[in-house]
Amino acid sequence: MTPLPLGSRIGILGAGQLGRMLAMAAARLGYRARVYAPEEGPAGQVAPQTVAPWTDEALDAFAQDCDVVTFEFENVPLHALDRVSGRVPIRPGRRSLEISRDRLSEKDFLNGLGLRTARYRDVKDPGNLDLQLREIGVPAILKTRRSGYDGKGQVWIHDPAHAARELANAGRGPWVLEGVVSYEREVSVIVARGMAGETACYDVGENRHVDGILRDTTVPARVAEDRAEQAKAMAVRIAEALGHVGVMGVELFDTGTRGPDGLVVNEIAPRVHNSGHWTEAACAVDQFERHVRAIAGLPLGDGRRYADARMENLVGPRGMAAVPDLMERDGVRVHLYGKGDAREGRKMGHAIHILR
Amino acid sequence: MTPLPLGSRIGILGAGQLGRMLAMAAARLGYRARVYAPEEGPAGQVAPQTVAPWTDEALDAFAQDCDVVTFEFENVPLHALDRVSGRVPIRPGRRSLEISRDRLSEKDFLNGLGLRTARYRDVKDPGNLDLQLREIGVPAILKTRRSGYDGKGQVWIHDPAHAARELANAGRGPWVLEGVVSYEREVSVIVARGMAGETACYDVGENRHVDGILRDTTVPARVAEDRAEQAKAMAVRIAEALGHVGVMGVELFDTGTRGPDGLVVNEIAPRVHNSGHWTEAACAVDQFERHVRAIAGLPLGDGRRYADARMENLVGPRGMAAVPDLMERDGVRVHLYGKGDAREGRKMGHAIHILR
Repeated sequence: MTPLPLGSRIGILGAGQLGRMLAMAAARLGYRARVYAPEEGPAGQVAPQTVAPWTDEALDAFAQDCDVVTFEFENVPLHALDRVSGRVPIRPGRRSLEISRDRLSEKDFLNGLGLRTARYRDVKDPGNLDLQLREIGVPAILKTRRSGYDGKGQVWIHDPAHAARELANAGRGPWVLEGVVSYEREVSVIVARGMAGETACYDVGENRHVDGILRDTTVPARVAEDRAEQAKAMAVRIAEALGHVGVMGVELFDTGTRGPDGLVVNEIAPRVHNSGHWTEAACAVDQFERHVRAIAGLPLGDGRRYADARMENLVGPRGMAAVPDLMERDGVRVHLYGKGDAREGRKMGHAIHILR
Repeated sequence: MTPLPLGSRIGILGAGQLGRMLAMAAARLGYRARVYAPEEGPAGQVAPQTVAPWTDEALDAFAQDCDVVTFEFENVPLHALDRVSGRVPIRPGRRSLEISRDRLSEKDFLNGLGLRTARYRDVKDPGNLDLQLREIGVPAILKTRRSGYDGKGQVWIHDPAHAARELANAGRGPWVLEGVVSYEREVSVIVARGMAGETACYDVGENRHVDGILRDTTVPARVAEDRAEQAKAMAVRIAEALGHVGVMGVELFDTGTRGPDGLVVNEIAPRVHNSGHWTEAACAVDQFERHVRAIAGLPLGDGRRYADARMENLVGPRGMAAVPDLMERDGVRVHLYGKGDAREGRKMGHAIHILR
């Protein structure tokens, strides 16, 4: 397979920080990035951006200016993907997006592969919620099937008596009801699959969330080697079953239980992932470059870790208030996203603590 | 001192690979880069570029769009610097550029500081060249005072009888005649000086040149610790004497002789330097980010090395031919500059070999 020639144009749907870091990685490999999103975003500061709604006309013009297209978030409308893919290769493909953007189809898919997830129910009819809550037990989490990220679109139900009220808070349906998994830690695997089907994983990271938002990721995770290998094998299995091309993030709960049921898949993201930002400071090829390599038909490259690290998200005003100190601290690499407004809960940047 | 606020615009004079890497570093710190050069260049792929000659009108418009301006190469016309500095702060200042862009004034300056350089003569009148060659001895190197880089604008004189012919090959004068320094190795120091006068150096690198072009830099250099400290002290001295703000590269010959005369300054560059590219893979804060920090009034940050490394330049068609193999090799970080035409002698990218 011939790799994408130098100087080729790589289109990115979405203009957030992931797109921004992908665009810079594309540049480092000698490619030219172009960004598409309905609103100006951080990626548009480092690559030419098309600011347009997801209309056929604008998408056609964008596709014409690209040699290959990828996406940085899973809420790209499917019709946009289809429109672009009729004109220029899009990687990863529709299936990765279609499965992972819907919490129900994602869980069906994972269970179909024989992987364990939280127990779940398809809440088609809110009238069945009481019954489903009895089946799943409380506490349970009611989530919208679509458009959720960073803890948005989900509510906890602690008492079945309040289920109707919580349903109203959960955002528009359809929903999925999930049981709560009791776990020791959350880990994640950043897996990549190349165009020839080759796969590679970075070392497993350990995640800490606060208020539904990733707070930090530490590598190596405090898990035994066989457990880490098992997590990687699961991630590879998922990428292969999707026919995924590019990087994807797989979040898993480590329940502490031995054996094949010890790891429960929390969710998958068909793209570079926040829990893989540490690779920037600790690997020859980071997750952004690896994604570009994968979709460009280049070798996935060496992703072995040459330092221990902890990646800390800088979230909202409080995250930004920490920046001056982080700038002075030893062993810290600060990476800001160029966002103007440090709203509560907004990811403004990250800092990688190199732990040697 | 208040640092440059987030979102501020950093102007870069020159649009080559150094400007490109500075622009990406500025982005990582939450700033917006703008680039100015008479011709489209690699930096214009990652930041908006003004393509214009060095005219007052175009420079004024550019200055208006910037909060601080810096430069990526020392051949920026002084009048351009002066024009911009009347409108917006320019860092480093005129003196750094003025001294280092002229091989004669650079040597006068260094000797004035009591630092050792090659013996040299100001060749004002080619009629004196014979006499000057007798004073310096052969072989000697005849260099144009201005506009030389990567081995351009210099010829070796092995035989005084051929001096006139070599003079014709050396390009337009004025010239400087330099004695040849017999050395064991060339090393370089990447020093930075901040706005409050604070200074910091990266670990000393060891350089190998082929045909006047840097081939590779290895860190750590094979020099004793006291010699490395001495080299750093010399670089700090130079940066301080220039009142430099930002990063600068100082190339030195290690003659192997003990004592203060053991190190001879080869040349200085008032900017980020090719021999500092390794910092990208081995330091929390690399030289590009450190330069941006310095000119933005931020702390210089932690530049300690957390891995050994060898940076290899990818030069011309042969350098590019090595890329496919390097992409697959373990422990290698490839960085390409987005240049289309791999002409002989042209720096197309670099690869950093992480040596652990």
